[in-house]
Amino acid sequence: MTGDIFSENHEVEYYETNLLGNMTLSMLTDVIIMISQDQATALGVGTQYVIEHGVTWVVAQTDMDITRLPRVHEKVQVQTRGSSYTKYFAYREFWVRDMDGNELVHVGSLWVMMDIQSRKMVKLDEAMVIPYHCDRVRRIQRLNKIPKIHDEHDIMQTEYHVRFTDIDWNSHVNNAKYIGWMVDVLPYDFLASHVPTEVSIKYEDEVTYGDPVLSRGKFINTDNQIQTVHDISVNGSTKSIAEVKWKKLDKKGSK
Amino acid sequence: MTGDIFSENHEVEYYETNLLGNMTLSMLTDVIIMISQDQATALGVGTQYVIEHGVTWVVAQTDMDITRLPRVHEKVQVQTRGSSYTKYFAYREFWVRDMDGNELVHVGSLWVMMDIQSRKMVKLDEAMVIPYHCDRVRRIQRLNKIPKIHDEHDIMQTEYHVRFTDIDWNSHVNNAKYIGWMVDVLPYDFLASHVPTEVSIKYEDEVTYGDPVLSRGKFINTDNQIQTVHDISVNGSTKSIAEVKWKKLDKKGSK
Repeated sequence: MTGDIFSENHEVEYYETNLLGNMTLSMLTDVIIMISQDQATALGVGTQYVIEHGVTWVVAQTDMDITRLPRVHEKVQVQTRGSSYTKYFAYREFWVRDMDGNELVHVGSLWVMMDIQSRKMVKLDEAMVIPYHCDRVRRIQRLNKIPKIHDEHDIMQTEYHVRFTDIDWNSHVNNAKYIGWMVDVLPYDFLASHVPTEVSIKYEDEVTYGDPVLSRGKFINTDNQIQTVHDISVNGSTKSIAEVKWKKLDKKGSK
Repeated sequence: MTGDIFSENHEVEYYETNLLGNMTLSMLTDVIIMISQDQATALGVGTQYVIEHGVTWVVAQTDMDITRLPRVHEKVQVQTRGSSYTKYFAYREFWVRDMDGNELVHVGSLWVMMDIQSRKMVKLDEAMVIPYHCDRVRRIQRLNKIPKIHDEHDIMQTEYHVRFTDIDWNSHVNNAKYIGWMVDVLPYDFLASHVPTEVSIKYEDEVTYGDPVLSRGKFINTDNQIQTVHDISVNGSTKSIAEVKWKKLDKKGSK
């Protein structure tokens, strides 16, 4: 797979981290979306350009593999490339590395293009893809199939109020908020003693200002893996689903 | 007034801004707290050092004067100094400037020192103040007296759930969250068409995980100024009060 790699450094500030000193999944999502925008701008096909052509990129799914989360005050390299595309889908990868080049996080992500007026998915405009120097392929890399919450027992849930500052320039809720709502329903003691190792999140529909967001989460039984499944809905309509695999920390606050 | 000035550059990322492309007050608060920590660390009296001495700095009030808010993708200079101190109080200033040195925001702030064990205010430890090269004064600069919500008519209010990621390493809610909760109760149309020009916030008590936070806001009548007053409480106990002065934008999205 090809595609030119674009790289930026990022220093993790204290307000980007949680109680454990680990970068939050929301902030990690913000930072990778930022670098994808920065690459697009550098290639002359940035946000402004695609909007002027009546379309916008929409992320459909992200699969994160986390060796370890960036730590408070750590300087990291964030990298991305447009890896491949088909008629309707683009596959983009991200890496977060320590300054020695060791991989901390790898993200595979699936993107589609939406017509701004109709809010419907359209064919990719190749003029906006070619600058990435990635291959057109017959079939995109398969992303993780996320299990749904299939029974109602032992569900943890919380309702969220969409805040003015959750809204981006596009009048929709910034994608990075979803994973924040999802993870937050888990118990404090669990969040203070576990770290995510794999996070898959599928974005199915937009959330807008004023929507009453219901976030549900559930532990599911597996043989040797702590695993949670999540969904976000508004008035019964699912907006996003996710699966998170976790590992227990040896001691509180360890990396 | 004296005190060595400490300076850092900061680039405003898209996720630090709101619908209007302006840096949010929460992010502005996060960034100034960060630079105060960075100065302390650079002077050898950082977070780790003060904690080892059994105390911690607590911000009691911030008064912001906003000429204009930093814009999305703008690079700004953030500056701070410890300006003066008395036996119990320290006065610290911050400036946010454009890269030509023009002042965008000035913040005056009042700090006290708390004993970590007793959670009580203690005398300032001069060893932790002297490195700032600021003067010991008889009386600290007066901060804005914030009006309280004095009648119950026309109050806007929302309850917030304290999220795991609202909590910092210190097990308390990060101060920057308060102003986010406060401003969020105001109507969408108002927030989309007005910008703050002065923000005073008094931090009276800690908020912790699990607290049901009630945020209330109210427009108050003044002759020629749009003004709101705010409070945050938990089970009837006030945690913070604030006053914000606003101006109307000429057109949507203008600076």
